[in-house]
Amino acid sequence: MTLFEYCGIDGVDIDRVIKMALVHDLVEIYAGDTFAYDAKGNESKEEREKESANKLFALLPAEQAKEYRSLWEEFDHMETPDAIYASAIDRLQSLHNIHLSGGHTWEMHSVTADKIYKRMMPAKTALPELWEYIERVVNEGLEKGYIQAEGANV
Amino acid sequence: MTLFEYCGIDGVDIDRVIKMALVHDLVEIYAGDTFAYDAKGNESKEEREKESANKLFALLPAEQAKEYRSLWEEFDHMETPDAIYASAIDRLQSLHNIHLSGGHTWEMHSVTADKIYKRMMPAKTALPELWEYIERVVNEGLEKGYIQAEGANV
Repeated sequence: MTLFEYCGIDGVDIDRVIKMALVHDLVEIYAGDTFAYDAKGNESKEEREKESANKLFALLPAEQAKEYRSLWEEFDHMETPDAIYASAIDRLQSLHNIHLSGGHTWEMHSVTADKIYKRMMPAKTALPELWEYIERVVNEGLEKGYIQAEGANV
Repeated sequence: MTLFEYCGIDGVDIDRVIKMALVHDLVEIYAGDTFAYDAKGNESKEEREKESANKLFALLPAEQAKEYRSLWEEFDHMETPDAIYASAIDRLQSLHNIHLSGGHTWEMHSVTADKIYKRMMPAKTALPELWEYIERVVNEGLEKGYIQAEGANV
């Protein structure tokens, strides 16, 4: 909502994006929050989240279940303008939080710069003017040593 | 968003309500969260929150500052349909949370039933079909003893 003026893609409906953002993490109630750079956890993520979604959305009236489920799926597929913008914001916030807390999460998991850039791709599309900020954050992490150089942990 | 089908007042714009709900607590960043039944804390709440708002919204571009500030003020004045519905949901969630956690907060502050009903008035207007649920919650609290009968702590 606050960064919408920097949105660089056409056709984004910010009201739908806000609803999508509010709904997209509900499946974590039963599936848990899978860490973005946890390769093993991400193998089973889809299955776990689908099970969680079935259980969770079954609590709602049919019409509402359908609406919430389709918002969640749309977010996850990251193909529509709304979903790309929502993902960009979701990932930017997480990058920003880790940055402000001194890179702890990146350091703990030996995350490399290329993985961060790959993960931030929706932001490159949806918030092009903020890419410079993302590069600044990554470069600071590389300098201070809590982000690994590309390929360092291969 | 989920309970909107129970909304009993006309002219509520749920997209605006969601924005209002997202914005209305931002002032707590500097002002802290004043407990609803803390009479002393509530004496200085308005002043503290106004100072916080001045500091916080000054971080934003002028037009956005104006939008956020007016959403916050509208919520606080609780006069428009959007603000009544947003307050109803905000207060219902807090009642629901305290109920689900065994009434700890009410017990700790010796809260009386009449104070809870008074605080839930926006929900009586905005979500009339849920009033029965609120009464059920209060009655259970009275039976179990973590809500005080009217006037008990006067």
